[in-house]
Amino acid sequence: MRARDLMVDYPTVALTDPAIDAARLLARSNLPGLIVVDDRGAPFAVLPGTQVLRLAVPVYIQDDPNLAAVIDEAAADVFLTELGERTVRDSLPPQPHELPVVDPDDTVLEVAALMARTRTPLVAVVDHGALLGAITLDRLLDRVLGA
Amino acid sequence: MRARDLMVDYPTVALTDPAIDAARLLARSNLPGLIVVDDRGAPFAVLPGTQVLRLAVPVYIQDDPNLAAVIDEAAADVFLTELGERTVRDSLPPQPHELPVVDPDDTVLEVAALMARTRTPLVAVVDHGALLGAITLDRLLDRVLGA
Repeated sequence: MRARDLMVDYPTVALTDPAIDAARLLARSNLPGLIVVDDRGAPFAVLPGTQVLRLAVPVYIQDDPNLAAVIDEAAADVFLTELGERTVRDSLPPQPHELPVVDPDDTVLEVAALMARTRTPLVAVVDHGALLGAITLDRLLDRVLGA
Repeated sequence: MRARDLMVDYPTVALTDPAIDAARLLARSNLPGLIVVDDRGAPFAVLPGTQVLRLAVPVYIQDDPNLAAVIDEAAADVFLTELGERTVRDSLPPQPHELPVVDPDDTVLEVAALMARTRTPLVAVVDHGALLGAITLDRLLDRVLGA
């Protein structure tokens, strides 16, 4: 079993898309994360769902849990709408050293090790810079465990 | 909206459960992660799905991507079955400093900030040491965005 046997079509978001639309895509489709592509359609970032949240949670609150507690309930309820007009590019968290991207010929163990190392339940399958598809953790487990 | 309004019942695994059963639960139920409870039913660990993979991917392969590439395809396909008789306790990755656990009165922003900070799309809701339920990232986004 190789990456090419596990991959499926997967929606992408562009750097110029509104960040709120990216959050809505994640929510509506119950995706484990998002693939952000550049102008040429190549993966620029692969964000686990928790890091899509970071698009919207103010940095000072991420850094200091006590500050989250002083925001009142009504304001907390609408924190995602604070994204306003910001684009995905404006809101991207600092990029990790290693992009969760695999080659179509990589084995399931290479894919699993990459997911574990990058803590990302989603990897992009890329061949010579072109995005072929994606592998989700659910899909990998289903295939490996025969679920 | 408070943690108590967002939480749902969530399956747990015990430290003494076979690790392979934990992986199967994750796969079968398409869960974003697992809550591992101790003998008294209190959360001992909250593992994002990618860290459940770490139960099975040998440590030397997690540390060195090149080593994953030298395992042949047939052996790679069955890496999860190598868990054998190991329990969840035997296989647990090193514990992070911060357990993704919230109080029933925490706001949605506090829950979101914790998910972002711990990179865990699942938090346990605990009151005086007792596990009341869990909040998944999907559930949080659906409620906040009204999806």
